[in-house]
Amino acid sequence: MGYLEEHQSRFLNEFLSLLRIPSISTDPAAAGAVRQAAEWVAERLRQAGMDGVRILETGGHPAVYGQWCGAPGRPTVLIYGHFDVQPVDPLHLWTHPPFEPAVVDGRVYARGATDMKGNLLLPIVACEALLRTEGQLPVNVKFLLEGEEEIGSPNLGPLLEAHRDLLACDLMVSADGGCGTPERPEVWLGPRGLVGLQINVRTADRDLHSGNGGLAPNAIHALVRLLDSMRDSAGRITVEGFYDSVRPLSDTDRAEIAAAAYPPAEYQSQTGVRGFFGEPEFTPFERASARPTLEVNGIWGGFTGEGIKTVIPCEAHAKITCRLVPDQRPAEIREKLLAHIRRHAPAYAEVTVDSLPGEADPYLIPADHPAQQALVRVLTAVTGRRPAVTRGFGTVPVMGMVKRILGVETISLGTGQADERAHAPDEFYRLDSFARGQRAYVLLLHELGEALPRTDDIK
Amino acid sequence: MGYLEEHQSRFLNEFLSLLRIPSISTDPAAAGAVRQAAEWVAERLRQAGMDGVRILETGGHPAVYGQWCGAPGRPTVLIYGHFDVQPVDPLHLWTHPPFEPAVVDGRVYARGATDMKGNLLLPIVACEALLRTEGQLPVNVKFLLEGEEEIGSPNLGPLLEAHRDLLACDLMVSADGGCGTPERPEVWLGPRGLVGLQINVRTADRDLHSGNGGLAPNAIHALVRLLDSMRDSAGRITVEGFYDSVRPLSDTDRAEIAAAAYPPAEYQSQTGVRGFFGEPEFTPFERASARPTLEVNGIWGGFTGEGIKTVIPCEAHAKITCRLVPDQRPAEIREKLLAHIRRHAPAYAEVTVDSLPGEADPYLIPADHPAQQALVRVLTAVTGRRPAVTRGFGTVPVMGMVKRILGVETISLGTGQADERAHAPDEFYRLDSFARGQRAYVLLLHELGEALPRTDDIK
Repeated sequence: MGYLEEHQSRFLNEFLSLLRIPSISTDPAAAGAVRQAAEWVAERLRQAGMDGVRILETGGHPAVYGQWCGAPGRPTVLIYGHFDVQPVDPLHLWTHPPFEPAVVDGRVYARGATDMKGNLLLPIVACEALLRTEGQLPVNVKFLLEGEEEIGSPNLGPLLEAHRDLLACDLMVSADGGCGTPERPEVWLGPRGLVGLQINVRTADRDLHSGNGGLAPNAIHALVRLLDSMRDSAGRITVEGFYDSVRPLSDTDRAEIAAAAYPPAEYQSQTGVRGFFGEPEFTPFERASARPTLEVNGIWGGFTGEGIKTVIPCEAHAKITCRLVPDQRPAEIREKLLAHIRRHAPAYAEVTVDSLPGEADPYLIPADHPAQQALVRVLTAVTGRRPAVTRGFGTVPVMGMVKRILGVETISLGTGQADERAHAPDEFYRLDSFARGQRAYVLLLHELGEALPRTDDIK
Repeated sequence: MGYLEEHQSRFLNEFLSLLRIPSISTDPAAAGAVRQAAEWVAERLRQAGMDGVRILETGGHPAVYGQWCGAPGRPTVLIYGHFDVQPVDPLHLWTHPPFEPAVVDGRVYARGATDMKGNLLLPIVACEALLRTEGQLPVNVKFLLEGEEEIGSPNLGPLLEAHRDLLACDLMVSADGGCGTPERPEVWLGPRGLVGLQINVRTADRDLHSGNGGLAPNAIHALVRLLDSMRDSAGRITVEGFYDSVRPLSDTDRAEIAAAAYPPAEYQSQTGVRGFFGEPEFTPFERASARPTLEVNGIWGGFTGEGIKTVIPCEAHAKITCRLVPDQRPAEIREKLLAHIRRHAPAYAEVTVDSLPGEADPYLIPADHPAQQALVRVLTAVTGRRPAVTRGFGTVPVMGMVKRILGVETISLGTGQADERAHAPDEFYRLDSFARGQRAYVLLLHELGEALPRTDDIK
């Protein structure tokens, strides 16, 4: 691996250059910067030896494509990442300006450092190293790097549909996902899905004086009852059929989750949670990774100012989202929620429902998939420890989308760590993670060349 | 009643003068206007023939006192009213400027017209008429007119305590209360009481990403469950002991309430309520007048903006108020609510409670009280119809306060009507109500002179 070591200071400088581009995808004023980042990435792919590099226009920010398909008959791997970043507010909490990266004690501080401009460079640098030292890659590689991940990838589905042939592959590797720490490495089977609704309750044409209490119905009472009807006292979700399509956990699954779990007391001291609550048949980590959830994310109605206002509110609202697990589907769960709401809405209340954006399929790669096994070997090699097998608590829409549209599985290799303040002030990335991640990608491409079945050239 | 008719145009001009004073008690900038109204009222009492007229200072806006105690051995009646008014926002919805009274088609439009500068003048004018024509009053009269009713009478209790001897009396007559319409006259047995709490739930130190769902507890879920535990599916309040001290309704009570009720469909068309809901053992009008209530007046927590934010809120809040009926007491119900909250708060939530201002005792005059019977005769005489006997849905703290501090009962005589837009733009008062109310007070003072037991001079 002499090449990587030899060029590490150039890679670092390139990383810092990319961090200086304020590619905040949610900020319309930063659209030029997002495009600048796309062009920077495209140029970097060309320098690494990719062919056919081009900007893919979307309805929003552009994506970048590049490929090396010089190994006919070998498998093709699609590498996914994004070059957009989160906003930087509150700015005054940053020790260094967020787009003037500061290298301090082996860490790079900047917006996008850990999420995910550092991780984005890992596979690019790895390909460059392999091409310069070996003259070829062990697999065919395609890059799809987008500029809208931090706003929920609204144009990614249509992009995959539109470029189905161009993006055809045998496997996706997402660089946007962590692998734990060197001390406690993890491989990820996949994220949960998501479906969300806003519930709107109306009980009268206008707010009424609370002297009418007993005569006038109260929209908050109706909403509270409806929401409370969705869970039992133990925290089980009582929406009819909610769990019907949940794939049961095997003993192996449960053992894996237990092995990956850390002490709940540790979680408690990090977050200040006052206690744990939920389906008693499952452990907290099983509930958070392998069980679906129904959470009220927000609620409002009536008088919320200082002091007292004796009003009977005529309307009240709540937003709920469900995290989904295989084999639940957003449309299926949306229907079940709607049926429950229809059945449980009090007769004195008019209830309407709006869909929320962000629906996503859950995704789970089979733990015995050869690519997943390859990833386990790579992480074992670079950390010296066998990784725990985990399921993501959150949602990453791209994986379910790729499975549905391109028909392939996804593994995740990234070296960001949970304490690196992604989305928050003073975001940072460890430089040793940067180096280790490059080595991991070199190993991974080799492993995949061996592990994946050879195919006819799909170009 | 020649005197009243003869001087009616002067009384109207006086009414318009008082309406021109913008005595908005909640507006600090209007403090001078509230005092000006006090001085205007004091001067008007002197002109009517009252003695010992004076401004009573309080911690806030002043009150006004005046008396005629020229009938030793006869009963003493304390007349209550207020000269402050509500704010005028939204100003653009007024047809005429709120403090430039407009007389149109037999109505006076101005802020304070119906609530209650017109009603305030009724007993003053009646006393003047009796003194000028008969040389004396049928009872001893004391006036207590305050300037803080519209901000919840925060200094009235201390004022009653401080002037207990001065205000000693056999009965209070409140001019701040309606008596229905000439077509459907009503006498009022008294208002409900009030106690309110804000419930605060905390489940973690900070909001958590909803990917933690299953692991992290949700403050909204805890609050929703707690609130839902306070009522059963039929709308009965399930706070332990909540109904213990509620005085049962007699058959007579229920017959009176039924007689005073108007068709629920009429209420429904006025308010657009989507249905009626509450204790099925009672009619809607029984629930609203003779049963206690527990209403959530406001609720908030988590993300309430547009779109989606996948957050598990660490805190949530609700404000609840209970309307109380005899013989419930605010402190008793507050304790029962606190005990319920302690018992039902989920183990994973930290629940704190703040008291809300505005606690008030319920009040109910015995329907067979001689003063109440006198009032029935007076309304029958001036409207030609026997009044229905009603209980107020809302809360008027002064009555319970006077019962507790001065030990006397209260009857209510005012001629404002429910459609006169009290507290709203284009508030108005009917001029025929103004004249009828003056006659009613003349009759009432005579009736009370006959009906109330004679006493030693209490001065």
